[in-house]
Amino acid sequence: MDVIVVMKAAASDDDVARVADRITELGLVPHPSKGEFRTIVGAIGEKTPQTREQLEQLPGVDEVMVISQPYKLASREFHEADTILDVKGIRIGGSHVNIIAGPCAIESREVLFGVGRAVKEAGASILRGGAYKPRSSPYSFQGRGREGLVLLKEAGEELNMPTITEVTDPRDVDTVCEFADILQIGSRNMQNFNLLLEVGKTDKPVFIKRGYAASTTELLMSAEYVLSQGNHRVILCERGIRTFGDDVRFTLDVSAIPVLQERTHLPVFFDPSHAAGKRDLVPPLALAGIAAGAHGAIVEVHSSPDRALCDGPQAVLPENFARLMKQMSAIAEIVGHRITPWGREEDRARRRVVGGWGG
Amino acid sequence: MDVIVVMKAAASDDDVARVADRITELGLVPHPSKGEFRTIVGAIGEKTPQTREQLEQLPGVDEVMVISQPYKLASREFHEADTILDVKGIRIGGSHVNIIAGPCAIESREVLFGVGRAVKEAGASILRGGAYKPRSSPYSFQGRGREGLVLLKEAGEELNMPTITEVTDPRDVDTVCEFADILQIGSRNMQNFNLLLEVGKTDKPVFIKRGYAASTTELLMSAEYVLSQGNHRVILCERGIRTFGDDVRFTLDVSAIPVLQERTHLPVFFDPSHAAGKRDLVPPLALAGIAAGAHGAIVEVHSSPDRALCDGPQAVLPENFARLMKQMSAIAEIVGHRITPWGREEDRARRRVVGGWGG
Amino acid sequence: MDVIVVMKAAASDDDVARVADRITELGLVPHPSKGEFRTIVGAIGEKTPQTREQLEQLPGVDEVMVISQPYKLASREFHEADTILDVKGIRIGGSHVNIIAGPCAIESREVLFGVGRAVKEAGASILRGGAYKPRSSPYSFQGRGREGLVLLKEAGEELNMPTITEVTDPRDVDTVCEFADILQIGSRNMQNFNLLLEVGKTDKPVFIKRGYAASTTELLMSAEYVLSQGNHRVILCERGIRTFGDDVRFTLDVSAIPVLQERTHLPVFFDPSHAAGKRDLVPPLALAGIAAGAHGAIVEVHSSPDRALCDGPQAVLPENFARLMKQMSAIAEIVGHRITPWGREEDRARRRVVGGWGG
Amino acid sequence: MDVIVVMKAAASDDDVARVADRITELGLVPHPSKGEFRTIVGAIGEKTPQTREQLEQLPGVDEVMVISQPYKLASREFHEADTILDVKGIRIGGSHVNIIAGPCAIESREVLFGVGRAVKEAGASILRGGAYKPRSSPYSFQGRGREGLVLLKEAGEELNMPTITEVTDPRDVDTVCEFADILQIGSRNMQNFNLLLEVGKTDKPVFIKRGYAASTTELLMSAEYVLSQGNHRVILCERGIRTFGDDVRFTLDVSAIPVLQERTHLPVFFDPSHAAGKRDLVPPLALAGIAAGAHGAIVEVHSSPDRALCDGPQAVLPENFARLMKQMSAIAEIVGHRITPWGREEDRARRRVVGGWGG
Repeated sequence: MDVIVVMKAAASDDDVARVADRITELGLVPHPSKGEFRTIVGAIGEKTPQTREQLEQLPGVDEVMVISQPYKLASREFHEADTILDVKGIRIGGSHVNIIAGPCAIESREVLFGVGRAVKEAGASILRGGAYKPRSSPYSFQGRGREGLVLLKEAGEELNMPTITEVTDPRDVDTVCEFADILQIGSRNMQNFNLLLEVGKTDKPVFIKRGYAASTTELLMSAEYVLSQGNHRVILCERGIRTFGDDVRFTLDVSAIPVLQERTHLPVFFDPSHAAGKRDLVPPLALAGIAAGAHGAIVEVHSSPDRALCDGPQAVLPENFARLMKQMSAIAEIVGHRITPWGREEDRARRRVVGGWGG
Repeated sequence: MDVIVVMKAAASDDDVARVADRITELGLVPHPSKGEFRTIVGAIGEKTPQTREQLEQLPGVDEVMVISQPYKLASREFHEADTILDVKGIRIGGSHVNIIAGPCAIESREVLFGVGRAVKEAGASILRGGAYKPRSSPYSFQGRGREGLVLLKEAGEELNMPTITEVTDPRDVDTVCEFADILQIGSRNMQNFNLLLEVGKTDKPVFIKRGYAASTTELLMSAEYVLSQGNHRVILCERGIRTFGDDVRFTLDVSAIPVLQERTHLPVFFDPSHAAGKRDLVPPLALAGIAAGAHGAIVEVHSSPDRALCDGPQAVLPENFARLMKQMSAIAEIVGHRITPWGREEDRARRRVVGGWGG
Repeated sequence: MDVIVVMKAAASDDDVARVADRITELGLVPHPSKGEFRTIVGAIGEKTPQTREQLEQLPGVDEVMVISQPYKLASREFHEADTILDVKGIRIGGSHVNIIAGPCAIESREVLFGVGRAVKEAGASILRGGAYKPRSSPYSFQGRGREGLVLLKEAGEELNMPTITEVTDPRDVDTVCEFADILQIGSRNMQNFNLLLEVGKTDKPVFIKRGYAASTTELLMSAEYVLSQGNHRVILCERGIRTFGDDVRFTLDVSAIPVLQERTHLPVFFDPSHAAGKRDLVPPLALAGIAAGAHGAIVEVHSSPDRALCDGPQAVLPENFARLMKQMSAIAEIVGHRITPWGREEDRARRRVVGGWGG
Repeated sequence: MDVIVVMKAAASDDDVARVADRITELGLVPHPSKGEFRTIVGAIGEKTPQTREQLEQLPGVDEVMVISQPYKLASREFHEADTILDVKGIRIGGSHVNIIAGPCAIESREVLFGVGRAVKEAGASILRGGAYKPRSSPYSFQGRGREGLVLLKEAGEELNMPTITEVTDPRDVDTVCEFADILQIGSRNMQNFNLLLEVGKTDKPVFIKRGYAASTTELLMSAEYVLSQGNHRVILCERGIRTFGDDVRFTLDVSAIPVLQERTHLPVFFDPSHAAGKRDLVPPLALAGIAAGAHGAIVEVHSSPDRALCDGPQAVLPENFARLMKQMSAIAEIVGHRITPWGREEDRARRRVVGGWGG
């Protein structure tokens, strides 16, 4: 989308259709995006020096912009305001902070429901649980698959929480869509482009974790794969990068949070659990990310981590999670955000307004 | 495979079957591997303190070993000698050095056949060409797909060269197997475990490129995914890692070559083109890798790089490739190796014998 | 100091002297350290299996411990409680959070005093300003040297703030001690061991910035160089590490804060300015580090950054710094800390008590 | 040196002096550099739009160039041909390859002379040995200091080899100059700018090792510190960088060799010993670096590494070093270089000519 056509507030649907048709005639692909006040139409492809001028003349067109970033639909140039998603009534992005919590893997009904209840009570708004677990060894527990998805759906319904789970294979996308509310793309699949295209064709929000050696631009390009298929509900997640350090599993790149927020309108989460790799380090990292202005965190919680089938050492105990939620909530307020279950319905003034650093 | 059962040279097929059955009874999964002189049976799973003793008593069993590495079938503990693969008469591994060359992407019959002829003449033994191109932008050229595969197969047949091409989706594995001789798993898919399992079920050699932030152990674990499915023909490829440096696209980790060779019996190649990112740097890196003892290199060559649809800046010109082949060949000899098309049929003393450093 | 001798509370000075003598006789070097309630004597060198037993029998000895870490005097094994330094009445460490602020370089009286007044008013407790600037180019502004030190001292006196400045050469240590209250060792000199030994012989607190590719263990070893000379007043500072990322100058390793605090009793600060490299990113990083539990931050502030002779782009404006101080202060409270100028005299319950994560 | 004045071949000394004077008048600092055929005068500082024109008019001036790189005297723009140093008759740079070898630290006369004799016989041209050892722990062996220097000088004289040793403190520069032929700046001191300025004032060649997280540009800037003081005899050394990998102590960045050679006229060496950290990996890395076109290597050799006081595990045995020298020599020939003791006096065609890759 080298070119973006901003329609006038008063432009009609016909005006928009005419612009889209003209874009097609010019050999580009149109991407209309209807906003509250105006409609914007992106045009991806090779533009000629005349493209701009040719589009500016059409009725209802206010302005034609050229986007300089390699990511187009993901950029703030394309969509200036924060995108706020609605997932079963939960609002994600803007000044809303949501904490996703739950066990790493769906192991048993007992653990899933027990942990789910605890995190819900503590203030988490979305339930996590892995059914397909990408493991570095073929001899490790690989997740419970479809059976796990069934449990997750039940838990979500009983607890009245939207659910998120990882999908690792384009062939599983349809199945996962049946059972979960948000599709997670794991770090190792951040550049599994066929998988991204497949989830881009669904109507489910897609939660993309940054690869542990991916640049922020590459993460935005992966989001672009999903957006380019017409699925505009994408959430990004910083989860730690690989550095020379060996104190933690991955180095949480806390600066990626404000850097991404400057470049994209999409919500930016982070994962203190996989970064830390040890439960003692999860709270300080969780607080740091919220203080840096993240739109949410995904935290692994387990009631008996020593018996967890996957990533036990980094799971926080439910009672510690409850305490952590309180601190996260207090910090979110300080940076102009609000943790969802305690939030008022009306949007608070956004952090960017409150902030306004620089100058 | 915590446990490996080494059969006596004189053990019968029945002996081997009995060992496999007993392993199953003990709750482990048997992995028989028939060598020139002996058969070895791996047993993956949780062993008890008695497992070893129980297996040692069976007829035909010479020795029972425990493997300490997380990778089992890939380790030198499991298979001490270098694995030498035979692909359409080309021997890969051991003292044989093979150069894979060709254009980055299959663009046109003209370029593919032209470059193919040139690299064949210069001494390359395997033809490369991408039909499915994983690109960081959804708006970039994505490869010619099946149409490209058809061209690649024709080129391989006309030039009498085995071919290699990348497969990026588990759903494409069957198709790619129809047309290519070696399946390439790209860096971005090194931990696409479902894809690894799928290629592990084929009878094609699998060429796995190291992820650009993957440890050598993780690369071996990915090989293990393929090996665990019964496909024992795996080739590893170092292709540059991501570091703080910005002079090159990726930092060629030349030490990974001897490090991997110490740990695994599988052939170890490297990719100077993707590491360098600029054609001027390809020759020094190519020579460095061969000097470090690699079993081969994969090099991008293009007759008119400025018109290439993908990665033109790193493609070497055919005439420079020919000169490079001569230097690589001379260096291979110095380290006790031999570049395939000029090699005698008999194996030369292996580098490890010639080498024997340390002490 | 493989061995640490903990004296009984009632041990006399003679008891301590006898232990020190015996340590010397055993071929080790004694390091006595007098605490509020007990004296501890470290013994560095090759111990024999009998060393422990031989020391345990001496009068006044309560316990003999072996320290497993390569850093000895810096470790929590040696000194369990947080070290709290007193610099001209300002308490550093424990639950006290101190913000060091000021211009990067001492350029002029006007800027130094102006910025100093502003940061003091906003709540900073220590004044920074560089007189010797290590610059990657020999052709860049290298600092005003002694002349700058004179100005810094005057400013500190007028504003009643302790001062900190960098020393880069062992030959300058005496001069810098004349004028500044805290000696800063910059990242590039973290392993300038002769410089560390020299500052270890002074009675000034030493503020050591982590090298941008140094492990936390190496940072602690550099602290050990200072401690081993008898100067026990060391402050550590995380300031960003070099990674593959290029969005920021250095990647702030926020996890280093809790990791260091677990291993050492020394105060742990961080530097959001040098990590960010851009003023817009300073506030989110500053808040993140305080939320992660740091004992303080060092922030560059300038009244006209576009005219700064050094690192202008990362300097925060005084008015933004004042707002940032308020947010940092609020976050410090949430994690059980208190920013110094607003703190009560009595220590609050320490974060470690409030925290107590894990289990 | 933003500006470089190239004098005509026929320019007189008076012409050069006049140019230098005019440069000073223009507010810049002149750096004359007398070559075989022409003299060049660099002018560092803020130039005005007129500077070029004003200098071009002076008698004897052929051309006035502007240098775009941050490093000036180190750049190929300033000095196009490879610099070839002469150290006691040994030629360094261009097509000459020199191997520096010896023990890590000077421990005893016996080891130093024994190893020295062995490496000399094997073909090494320069003797190494550390007297001041920068160690990460204050409790480790720190080198024998002056006493070690005396031994090194004796060994160099007896064996008729130039010597190299590390200097770590500006206060030791004079002493080290008395005893050694080449001054080594270690990785940890690559940005110890006061030390660089000090060695820049001597007439000894300076061998600068790249910091393990320094960019190649930063290495060149450190060289510039030395060059700017009038000492034009600088050798650069790649010695491994810090990455996420943990198989080796440091990842040898073999691509830095051709990258540096493209940008600078200074000789580029590498250190396979410190990169590898294990003696088994030294030979493959040593061969790789020579194949990549380095002007030399620095290799640690020890006759009884298990008793070495420093870095024993990476020291190669003398007999293995002799074999390695033969392989390095053979590889050097293949890339158009020649290892010094076996080299003809006349220069061979340079690698760059032989090479000429790209296009």
